[in-house]
Amino acid sequence: MSDLPNRVSLREVGPRDGLQNEEPVATKAKIELVDALSQTGVGRIEAVSFVHPRAIPQMADADDVWAGIVRNPAIRYSALVPNLRGAQRALDRGCLEIEIVVSASDTHNKANVNRTTAESLDEISQVIDLAHERGATCHVTVSTAWGCPYEGDVPVERVVSVAKRAVADGADGLSFGDTTGMATPTRVTRLVGETRMAMPDVPLNQHFHNTRGTALANVLAALQLGVADFDASVGGLGGCPYAPGASGNLASEELVHMVEDMGIDTGVDLDALINVAREAERIVGRELPSQVLRAGPRTRRTPMP
Amino acid sequence: MSDLPNRVSLREVGPRDGLQNEEPVATKAKIELVDALSQTGVGRIEAVSFVHPRAIPQMADADDVWAGIVRNPAIRYSALVPNLRGAQRALDRGCLEIEIVVSASDTHNKANVNRTTAESLDEISQVIDLAHERGATCHVTVSTAWGCPYEGDVPVERVVSVAKRAVADGADGLSFGDTTGMATPTRVTRLVGETRMAMPDVPLNQHFHNTRGTALANVLAALQLGVADFDASVGGLGGCPYAPGASGNLASEELVHMVEDMGIDTGVDLDALINVAREAERIVGRELPSQVLRAGPRTRRTPMP
Repeated sequence: MSDLPNRVSLREVGPRDGLQNEEPVATKAKIELVDALSQTGVGRIEAVSFVHPRAIPQMADADDVWAGIVRNPAIRYSALVPNLRGAQRALDRGCLEIEIVVSASDTHNKANVNRTTAESLDEISQVIDLAHERGATCHVTVSTAWGCPYEGDVPVERVVSVAKRAVADGADGLSFGDTTGMATPTRVTRLVGETRMAMPDVPLNQHFHNTRGTALANVLAALQLGVADFDASVGGLGGCPYAPGASGNLASEELVHMVEDMGIDTGVDLDALINVAREAERIVGRELPSQVLRAGPRTRRTPMP
Repeated sequence: MSDLPNRVSLREVGPRDGLQNEEPVATKAKIELVDALSQTGVGRIEAVSFVHPRAIPQMADADDVWAGIVRNPAIRYSALVPNLRGAQRALDRGCLEIEIVVSASDTHNKANVNRTTAESLDEISQVIDLAHERGATCHVTVSTAWGCPYEGDVPVERVVSVAKRAVADGADGLSFGDTTGMATPTRVTRLVGETRMAMPDVPLNQHFHNTRGTALANVLAALQLGVADFDASVGGLGGCPYAPGASGNLASEELVHMVEDMGIDTGVDLDALINVAREAERIVGRELPSQVLRAGPRTRRTPMP
């Protein structure tokens, strides 16, 4: 495995993608979570979503959270936006890095935003232009990249074609989202490989869910193709809406724990991150799925018998 | 990933390794579990441990379970034995495939069987001879192969040297046990690679625990070196004694689900296996950690919105 990257960048998505899929929590707790994460060594935090409160009540206080965060200058804070209007709002609040999602599957995209994939891509093009006019960047996530819960498998060609369109329109970075945990390693190899062939230079992030236990195996497959940028959520915040009790987001501690032991630097202090995961459990009032939070890192010793 | 094996063999260890680490269950339920597993397509089942009831009360009824199983002639049923006495007992009951474990770490081996690793290897040599005299096979598992909860890292050379001794003494197959989930993919690559260099032809099984979420990533690393034989436990039966709430054994459904989607044949009917996992939950009266049991396979569709 000598061709693995030396360093991996983690985008911490717990405060947004995580909390968006939990019961609503207090604004103060959200700000404390972001601020605690900003002391762990993570380089990027997806902090809020500027989405209409009727659509996502969990993010109704996005303005207050965004304004309340104590900025660590070493960290890039980003915000998700659902559309042009949300982008305007984010940029007006001084956000320099926005993200927008489009599903590769029409059915899933319609269920989410009542538009076809093509219609969303047209709006994303305008969002990218607006971000650039305002001196911000715009990253595009192609979701249901390894399968759609309604349609099933999504052809690799379709996913790559959606990604190509976003990049042609100026996206500053791409992410593939495994929305309901349908990716397995050979599928990751295929999609990442095809994407790299089509667009060798575009910054490429992977967003895996551990819904079916494969998230870290998928990370390994992506690492082996040189991918060095992953989303993960502290504690594994963000359940799986399709399966009560099942995991959603890959837990940040599990990602950091595995890749650091493989000799890949993340810049993250694992013990500090585990402490924040414990705090995240307290905030949402339920046990989170992170195995490393439960068992501790592999360096933990049991007292001699 | 063109060099992956076409077929993987699963040794189902839920009835032994799984139930040994759960609260005791009724003999009838154990027999029903083995019999249900024998209808799923798995080729091998580790059914019982012939161990002293004072040491492991959960296996006190091993004789009755072993006698009560309805044999499927397509399946190899095996039994774990702790020592020469247990081997004698297993062979007297007609067992044709026995397994014995030795820890690569002295501290862990002493905690388990009050002997050094070297002392256990001497006895294992006698167990192998006895098995062969009686027309049976003996497989040896080297546990704490990727780390010991008391001592920490175990040098690869030490693990390989323990394995070599067992093979030199006639072991019919080797397994490496990740006893407390300390393996990560690069460690798997290193140990499997060194083992293959030293003993290219010995049958090699891997027994991963998902204690820190890495089990399927470790499977992928092993597959990439041609390993095609894995232990797994239905539903993920068998908690982690060191961390309440944490996972122990890799869940059989998670293994089958991932590798089958990667085009690797297991011979197992995943739906049937999930049904048995559900039954295993009923037997032990707690939620098991298998993600595929919770979420269903990736082929499961959500009704169109």
